[in-house]
Amino acid sequence: MKFEVLLRDPKTRARRGRLHTGHGVIETPVFMPVGTQASVKSMTPDQLRHLNVEILLCNSYHLFLRPGHETVARLGGLHRFMGWEGPILTDSGGFQVFSLSSLRDISEDGVRFQSHLDGTTHFLSPELAVDIQMALGSDIMMILDDCLAYPSSHFDADRSMKRSLAWAERCHAHWMGTRGQTPRPQALFGIVQGSIYPDLRKESADRLIAMDFPGYAIGGLAVGEPKPLMYEIIERVEPYLPEEKPRYLMGVGTPADLVEAVACGVDMFDCVMPTRHARNGWLFTKGGHIVIKHSKYKEDREPIDSTCGCSVCQTYSRAYLRHLFIANEILSSVLNTIHNLYFYLDTIRRIRQFIEFHRFDEILAETRRTGAH
Amino acid sequence: MKFEVLLRDPKTRARRGRLHTGHGVIETPVFMPVGTQASVKSMTPDQLRHLNVEILLCNSYHLFLRPGHETVARLGGLHRFMGWEGPILTDSGGFQVFSLSSLRDISEDGVRFQSHLDGTTHFLSPELAVDIQMALGSDIMMILDDCLAYPSSHFDADRSMKRSLAWAERCHAHWMGTRGQTPRPQALFGIVQGSIYPDLRKESADRLIAMDFPGYAIGGLAVGEPKPLMYEIIERVEPYLPEEKPRYLMGVGTPADLVEAVACGVDMFDCVMPTRHARNGWLFTKGGHIVIKHSKYKEDREPIDSTCGCSVCQTYSRAYLRHLFIANEILSSVLNTIHNLYFYLDTIRRIRQFIEFHRFDEILAETRRTGAH
Repeated sequence: MKFEVLLRDPKTRARRGRLHTGHGVIETPVFMPVGTQASVKSMTPDQLRHLNVEILLCNSYHLFLRPGHETVARLGGLHRFMGWEGPILTDSGGFQVFSLSSLRDISEDGVRFQSHLDGTTHFLSPELAVDIQMALGSDIMMILDDCLAYPSSHFDADRSMKRSLAWAERCHAHWMGTRGQTPRPQALFGIVQGSIYPDLRKESADRLIAMDFPGYAIGGLAVGEPKPLMYEIIERVEPYLPEEKPRYLMGVGTPADLVEAVACGVDMFDCVMPTRHARNGWLFTKGGHIVIKHSKYKEDREPIDSTCGCSVCQTYSRAYLRHLFIANEILSSVLNTIHNLYFYLDTIRRIRQFIEFHRFDEILAETRRTGAH
Repeated sequence: MKFEVLLRDPKTRARRGRLHTGHGVIETPVFMPVGTQASVKSMTPDQLRHLNVEILLCNSYHLFLRPGHETVARLGGLHRFMGWEGPILTDSGGFQVFSLSSLRDISEDGVRFQSHLDGTTHFLSPELAVDIQMALGSDIMMILDDCLAYPSSHFDADRSMKRSLAWAERCHAHWMGTRGQTPRPQALFGIVQGSIYPDLRKESADRLIAMDFPGYAIGGLAVGEPKPLMYEIIERVEPYLPEEKPRYLMGVGTPADLVEAVACGVDMFDCVMPTRHARNGWLFTKGGHIVIKHSKYKEDREPIDSTCGCSVCQTYSRAYLRHLFIANEILSSVLNTIHNLYFYLDTIRRIRQFIEFHRFDEILAETRRTGAH
């Protein structure tokens, strides 16, 4: 995997980059829609291509439990399985083990957990986390890390961060030992932990960088901490990270979060917000969000956002989208998802263009002025 | 509305026709996917166009209750509302009043019923049934008819048929009185009733033909009677109907039903079977149906039907489709619906081609030999 920084914004830390993977080139900053169970909910791969989606994120935890990573491997890997020939990033499964399953036991070796689907017991080790992602065949894999709740004490955060580092070592060693055994190259990213404590974040970053990963994520944010604190941590962590490697802010966030984090030097994002909100009838517009079920839209002929270029806004009224939502039609999820994903992808495209024009600070100022999202 | 019979099969009563509507030309025999609530469940209009859908059926009953026909009219009519610029046929609402709602009272005037959504009371008269469909702006409207259960006595069937005729007169008169008041021409079809009694069917047909409708439907079938009896009634009714008008068999049926009914001279069909079955994981193939959730498909790399030309069979394995179904992914409904609709539309296209080649009897013989569906 090769990463180039094409351009640096003169007034912020924003950068315009390009990431080369075995399944194609990604322009950064990039937003990755989430395809949890090998499907971006309600979207066909054709619809994703029409939206110019560049890379998807899929969840190892879900695919490990169902249909099973070995099944996916026998069926030719995740790309072929789901009919998506573009790049895919997989997480390690760690976050879902901590958030979805009944935790049984966490040790230096790994984590024993119960499936949220059927209560069966499984053991996830750093090595297995890599094996799962190698079986899936994702272009970018993530290390297994220990996911900490917010707030946590410095003591707990330190212990958790050190466990994550130990797991990072093992993931890295396992990955190095199996490189060249997969049909296409698969990169492995480290994840900086350390909660809200800059000293821990620095130690985490330094020791991960010593292992030399192809990319670095900032983990453990957007877990309940106040927004200004999240931005502060991103800003503090960024200088610890090597300039020439991509930086990925996991699970973040609102459109405004994207702008703020790009200003701190982040290159990659994923978030369920556009897709999940779509299914709940929560639609993004440049003037803020609208809740489509509201009765005031019953006879509203306007599109969701009259300045939006998406296919939904070209064709359908708010009245029709409200009708689909109220009538519980599947098409409601489909059309709302197309719009919300377009909104996110358009936001990130706009960010890229403005970096190219050396005018990124204008978007940043506008975002802070309007306070949108 | 203009209908041409282009070709008659020399060995059966099958015909190849063309129906001209205000929203485009339909080649017959034709299959109409059902878009109950102004949406063919899970399909975008783009996907319907890619499937070469020629005409949709929408349900007046549902649209009358939600969002309301007057709302649809104020929003520019049903075509614009749902983003479908092709032809639309609407039913009268009668069938749903009899099957979905709590019936309150049926009189010569019409039918008082309770909404299945919220229990509110409504009154549907023959005139209102036409008004609703005029407000929706469908290309083909249906008369309000009295829908009879199976089995029914000759006495009950006679009374019901005569009530339907009285309503047909009123629908026809109301339609004639309002013609020219809508932006585009809207045809009105009569519906032959009379249960399983040929004498009643003949009386119904004769009296409807005297009113001179642009097309005639055969109603009151596929309501529980044995298949051979259904085919027998279609065969008996056909000679009563004028050669130069389209014939529409309402709510029928399986792919084999389509072949059998075309052989009896039917031109138009609608059925929820392909779309509803799709959502339940019941998929049509040339060798019979498959139930996609079955564990034997867990690692099946084959498409649903290796002889099928649909986009789903070109891309996805049964294993992936099973995974989507088991994981309750919305995309399961989307992909299964694309396949099942393609199967129906391909069946009807094949029927048309074989009529053109004077070889329709081969499809008929094949259908009877294989006993498929």
